[in-house]
Amino acid sequence: MTIASFHPPRRTLMGPGPSDVSDRILQAMARPTIGHLDPAFIGMMDEIKTLLQYAFKTKNELTFAVSAPGSAGMECCFVNLVEPGDKVIICQNGVFGGRMQENVERCGGNAVMVQDAWGSAVDPEKLEAALVKNPDAVLVAFVHAETSTGAQSDAKTLVALAHKHGCLTIVDAVTSLTGTPLLVDEWEIDAIYSGSQKCLSAPPGLSPVSFNARAAEKIRQRSSKVQSWFLDLNLVMGYWGGEGRRAYHHTAPVNCLYGLHEALVIVQDEGLENAWVRHHKNHLALRDGLQEMGISFLVPERDRLPQLNTIYIPEGVDDALVRQRLLTEFDLEIGSGLGALAGKVWRIGLMGHGSSEKNVAFCLNSLKAVL
Amino acid sequence: MTIASFHPPRRTLMGPGPSDVSDRILQAMARPTIGHLDPAFIGMMDEIKTLLQYAFKTKNELTFAVSAPGSAGMECCFVNLVEPGDKVIICQNGVFGGRMQENVERCGGNAVMVQDAWGSAVDPEKLEAALVKNPDAVLVAFVHAETSTGAQSDAKTLVALAHKHGCLTIVDAVTSLTGTPLLVDEWEIDAIYSGSQKCLSAPPGLSPVSFNARAAEKIRQRSSKVQSWFLDLNLVMGYWGGEGRRAYHHTAPVNCLYGLHEALVIVQDEGLENAWVRHHKNHLALRDGLQEMGISFLVPERDRLPQLNTIYIPEGVDDALVRQRLLTEFDLEIGSGLGALAGKVWRIGLMGHGSSEKNVAFCLNSLKAVL
Repeated sequence: MTIASFHPPRRTLMGPGPSDVSDRILQAMARPTIGHLDPAFIGMMDEIKTLLQYAFKTKNELTFAVSAPGSAGMECCFVNLVEPGDKVIICQNGVFGGRMQENVERCGGNAVMVQDAWGSAVDPEKLEAALVKNPDAVLVAFVHAETSTGAQSDAKTLVALAHKHGCLTIVDAVTSLTGTPLLVDEWEIDAIYSGSQKCLSAPPGLSPVSFNARAAEKIRQRSSKVQSWFLDLNLVMGYWGGEGRRAYHHTAPVNCLYGLHEALVIVQDEGLENAWVRHHKNHLALRDGLQEMGISFLVPERDRLPQLNTIYIPEGVDDALVRQRLLTEFDLEIGSGLGALAGKVWRIGLMGHGSSEKNVAFCLNSLKAVL
Repeated sequence: MTIASFHPPRRTLMGPGPSDVSDRILQAMARPTIGHLDPAFIGMMDEIKTLLQYAFKTKNELTFAVSAPGSAGMECCFVNLVEPGDKVIICQNGVFGGRMQENVERCGGNAVMVQDAWGSAVDPEKLEAALVKNPDAVLVAFVHAETSTGAQSDAKTLVALAHKHGCLTIVDAVTSLTGTPLLVDEWEIDAIYSGSQKCLSAPPGLSPVSFNARAAEKIRQRSSKVQSWFLDLNLVMGYWGGEGRRAYHHTAPVNCLYGLHEALVIVQDEGLENAWVRHHKNHLALRDGLQEMGISFLVPERDRLPQLNTIYIPEGVDDALVRQRLLTEFDLEIGSGLGALAGKVWRIGLMGHGSSEKNVAFCLNSLKAVL
């Protein structure tokens, strides 16, 4: 049987990511591939670093894109910063805190879990209690914007608490980067990872990360080798020029980086603060429309992410059928619930290029038609 | 300072990869992004699996693309198949055997190195001696097509020896897949990894892999967890449908997979055997032209890879200057030497879409003009 070229349908992507990718970024993906050691490519890598520093609001030298999706960005932070026997406090309020625990344990670390309800922000008081109870902890990790619930936590306060007790911090910003305020240097975040396919609206496959000098120093001073060769920052630092040289480490995903570069240029041209305002404004319009329909939110207003709206499925409504009808009748994708929230909620993304008045209206009208 | 959109030069890529990507594949990369759980996407994943089975000449159920470059594909094989304390025999005849050693040691394994000269094929007699001397070895790993030297090893014989002594095998086929005969089932290779950016001529960023039932069983029966969450095949198997379900694991690099799909359709349409013949024919033409110029090969004729031609830099010639002139005057990229061969050789790729009469003539003429 002969297989033909694949022509995907044109969807409107309003799930938890990937988000709608603009034609401008898609066209960048199709530019001619060049070598990963070509001077023109290395110049582009330098620009990506500068643009990522802008997006993260950081001056961190060690700012680049891991050549793999967000899960690998998460793993990159943990395998480099956790050594066997290290005690790590993880604040969990959704699916991705659980994945952090998996990471710590696979690094031979000892994970201390601080639990909050799914849909709530992380409670700083619980973190402080855990820090007092575990004075030997060396690291605190939490999710800034929980993609499984749409809740936002107070990263600045959590980082300050961790530092007060002598811990470094790893922050998951997969869904927050460029969608909601995130100030890496001002909040003194030590290590952070994100994804290309959320508020940056680039295709999935890359994970922007940033490490401050303290985190980089800890990585340099490790007593054991990083267990992943591919993600070992002592090797990757050479490749991305953090140390001023350009050693071959692995072959970079050239065309994906074209897409990320274009996405970051778009953020720069709009202005980060303008992007935050746009995400907030479109969230309010969606919220008002949903509330008119009698639909309620999982997350209390104060902690809601504007870019990811998690709503209760109205009683008596068939979860899978509605999503299927939205997809087949409207080419509209919204997200289902994850983990403990499966079957209970939908997740509506208004991320990056997809955070627009047009998408708000389209989503509300489509939902009205189907419900 | 404002950064503008990036417009790469259009190069002819005749290094060790990435190879020239055809416009057909570039256009596929620019198709609209859809969700990684979209039924249309899942259908495409099934097709990629079928097409990869064709390219690898295997019926292995566990055949898919790791969502990251070839180095991660290598790591995927090792972290899944090596447990702490395992003894692994590695046949090294170039840079990438050394990377295998790094992988084994980072998994807590014990690497026994069998060395051959860089530029030679792996010597089966040396492997057999090592197997006899190390009856407690559980795994043999080697590179089928050494990207750093252009030498091809006799994978069939090496695998048979390993099996005779009760070892499973991991084979690096980054540069061989679709460029030179590779028969995964007939040769009984247990685990194999490749890259998208060599003879498949897709952009870099994906690593096709395949595991036979014996390897999959060993992974299922591990006594310790795989140290990488991102690469844990016990989790990934669910995602790629090896077990008949479609659990969410990580967000797949959607548009890169469009490119890989298109590249595999092109292989299918040409026919694998025809592709091997084409690579061989163009290699002979390049060889004849280079020999006329008095240039000699690193690798003895018998062991040469048609897709990667490693030649000695003529005496008195400035390595870096020639490559720079080829790049700036002809937009032609050829590869430098790697590791111990740096400054001594050039590597000329005739891979996939780039293995053409036109490229052979262009490369010979450009070299003549510059030397």
